[in-house]
Amino acid sequence: MKLTPNPEKAMIALSIGDPTVFGNLPTDACVLKALKDAVESARYNGYAPSIGYQKSREAVANFYNSSLAPLEAKDVVLTSGCSQAIELCISVLSNPGDNILIPCPGFSLYKTIALSIGVQVKLYNLLPERSWEVDLEHLESLVDEQTTCLVLTNPSNPCGSVFSKEHLEGILKVASKHCLPILADEIYGDMVFPGCTYTSLATLSSDVPILSCGGLAKRWLVPGWRMGWILIHDRRDVFGSEIRKGLVKLTQLILGACTLVQGALESILQNTPQHFYDSTTSFLKANAEICFKELSTVPGLTPIMPSGAMYFMVGIDIDHFPGMKNDVEFTERLVTEQSVFCLPTSAFDYPNFFRIVVTVPEKLMVEACVRIRLFCQQHYLPHRADSSELDQ
Amino acid sequence: MKLTPNPEKAMIALSIGDPTVFGNLPTDACVLKALKDAVESARYNGYAPSIGYQKSREAVANFYNSSLAPLEAKDVVLTSGCSQAIELCISVLSNPGDNILIPCPGFSLYKTIALSIGVQVKLYNLLPERSWEVDLEHLESLVDEQTTCLVLTNPSNPCGSVFSKEHLEGILKVASKHCLPILADEIYGDMVFPGCTYTSLATLSSDVPILSCGGLAKRWLVPGWRMGWILIHDRRDVFGSEIRKGLVKLTQLILGACTLVQGALESILQNTPQHFYDSTTSFLKANAEICFKELSTVPGLTPIMPSGAMYFMVGIDIDHFPGMKNDVEFTERLVTEQSVFCLPTSAFDYPNFFRIVVTVPEKLMVEACVRIRLFCQQHYLPHRADSSELDQ
Ligand SMILES: Cc1ncc(COP(=O)(O)O)c(C=O)c1O
Ligand SMILES: Cc1ncc(COP(=O)(O)O)c(C=O)c1O
Repeated sequence: MKLTPNPEKAMIALSIGDPTVFGNLPTDACVLKALKDAVESARYNGYAPSIGYQKSREAVANFYNSSLAPLEAKDVVLTSGCSQAIELCISVLSNPGDNILIPCPGFSLYKTIALSIGVQVKLYNLLPERSWEVDLEHLESLVDEQTTCLVLTNPSNPCGSVFSKEHLEGILKVASKHCLPILADEIYGDMVFPGCTYTSLATLSSDVPILSCGGLAKRWLVPGWRMGWILIHDRRDVFGSEIRKGLVKLTQLILGACTLVQGALESILQNTPQHFYDSTTSFLKANAEICFKELSTVPGLTPIMPSGAMYFMVGIDIDHFPGMKNDVEFTERLVTEQSVFCLPTSAFDYPNFFRIVVTVPEKLMVEACVRIRLFCQQHYLPHRADSSELDQ
Repeated sequence: MKLTPNPEKAMIALSIGDPTVFGNLPTDACVLKALKDAVESARYNGYAPSIGYQKSREAVANFYNSSLAPLEAKDVVLTSGCSQAIELCISVLSNPGDNILIPCPGFSLYKTIALSIGVQVKLYNLLPERSWEVDLEHLESLVDEQTTCLVLTNPSNPCGSVFSKEHLEGILKVASKHCLPILADEIYGDMVFPGCTYTSLATLSSDVPILSCGGLAKRWLVPGWRMGWILIHDRRDVFGSEIRKGLVKLTQLILGACTLVQGALESILQNTPQHFYDSTTSFLKANAEICFKELSTVPGLTPIMPSGAMYFMVGIDIDHFPGMKNDVEFTERLVTEQSVFCLPTSAFDYPNFFRIVVTVPEKLMVEACVRIRLFCQQHYLPHRADSSELDQ
């Protein structure tokens, strides 16, 4: 989209999934220190093993290890960002002609990666009226002989939803019944609002093998560092050795994460103070609450309060906005008139919502909401602009 | 290979293409300082554009720009190591079913990447008796309708060869005649011994479009940092916009290099002192000369003096080593008896040579040569162990 914002209003971009752009959410000092120490040591300049340093893999294993979902270094593969983790997982589980199940609305990378290697995607519905829970019946109806993997995003981009233990068990039941491995994209894991509980999928699974993808990008607020990982949970040894070997082979193609960041990883995971994580999630919750409070009373909008991640979904009663065909036109007009940019959810294969990133400074969040209200008040038509009207 | 070295001799590994493993070739202090500054600035934690920061791309363009092969930021794509650069180039030029021409002996990654995306490889011969120049006739005979790209490694891994201007022009002539773009793997560019001249391919090309791949790994001695680049040389606009657009799209899959290293790039390229580069190449030349001097007089071996990179190829008159079928068995026995490990060139699809990495400390280089001599003296049979003998 090439749009000209309203020159009288400073642009507010609520579209970018990069928590660092406004400068209000710096990473913790100890994260930077760990990296500086790694540079100074001059010990991390050579090639690491393609799956990562043993010690760094151990650090990740220790960080995520739990009695319900034990992890050792051998279960960890380090990657260049969570994106590469996802790429390796989809590649290792699927051949051209296979298909994978992905959420709708969902992060677009799954589809992009799958199609780039000749793997088809089938979109399963998330239900806005149930806080974006999975439509389990729909999910199950999509499984066929060629389905190799179920992709789950929890907490979700773009929804900001966090699934309950019970709902995750329901999903596992479907996967178990159809012997489907799960790619659990948990890059926003533990990034949930105070008062809300996050359950990592692997702690609930008895038989379904799970590849959990994560990384430093979001929770540690350093997406540019390109540090990701795959946690292999396969206590029943369903994968056998093939999947592990396959992952190793795939990492050898371009090698993984920068060794300096790998070298800093143990210190980062051990030393980042709890209050850093807490202050991030408190901030995100406060912003989300501002958003919800402001937008709930705006005519024509249906905000859905998130519980985690850094996103907020707002439904548009598009029939009440004459002259705007869909979410794309709605968000375009919002830019040209109010200089507020939100991502239309068509980008996530889902119509008539827009996604707000709640990492912006509070003042901008408030101002953006004021402008969105103004915009809607100017364009909202209480009576449906339906076809009968057009006929008149 | 799982081999037990001779317990009475300390292992000397001459097999690893990582110049940092022995600690004798540290990167320059200013390279580390640039990285530390980038960390401290806290400006490089967010996402960069998928093709890299504009400023970092500009820095690379300025560094490699020349009147004969002008470069601007728009011609530079930053990648996660030269490996990803190669992957993106092969992917953007080829579809499944196409084929690419790769050198034999050659770096194995080209084949691994090609096969992983359904692209076939055809191996063109390098001629040891002509200092590993390309057999141009053989090269040309391989071109067919499905050939999408000629891969050239100069200076070469594993050969350590550096092509003359005239020879490069000969290669360009073949490419031009068949309208073949060239992927020039120039990761060892400028890494040539004192007295020898390196010519970057693009400075010689008038019409052949060239994707030159490089990175920080070798010349700056920081392979773990995973900083690579593609330089697009296409002065006649043969690629049109398609290839550039395709490269951008491909970078969006997993994003590229760590932002901290990107942030340090300008300073690294501007401030690394000439004497750093010079002292590396002088060291490598001195080691190669030791190797050549020592091994020239060893019965059954034919060392070929390199001119650049960090490798040294040694031919094995395998018929004179009874009981050893090929280079693999030769190098295995060399480990179990003398605790010296060299890479058999079967790893490069080429028989009966072994590759020595000349980055080891001089003392180890000498000791390794002594042991190789001992090994050959013990096993060399002046008369060919040919079939007539076996018949007796
Ligand atoms: C759900 C989800 N998965 C993965 C990623 C990619 O993470 P990374 O930057 O570590 O590649 C993102 C980034 O926005 C995301 O939202
Ligand atoms: C010829 C050649 N190209 C590319 C590479 C890979 O470089 P990087 O480590 O930057 O991915 C190597 C590494 O050994 C190499 O020898």
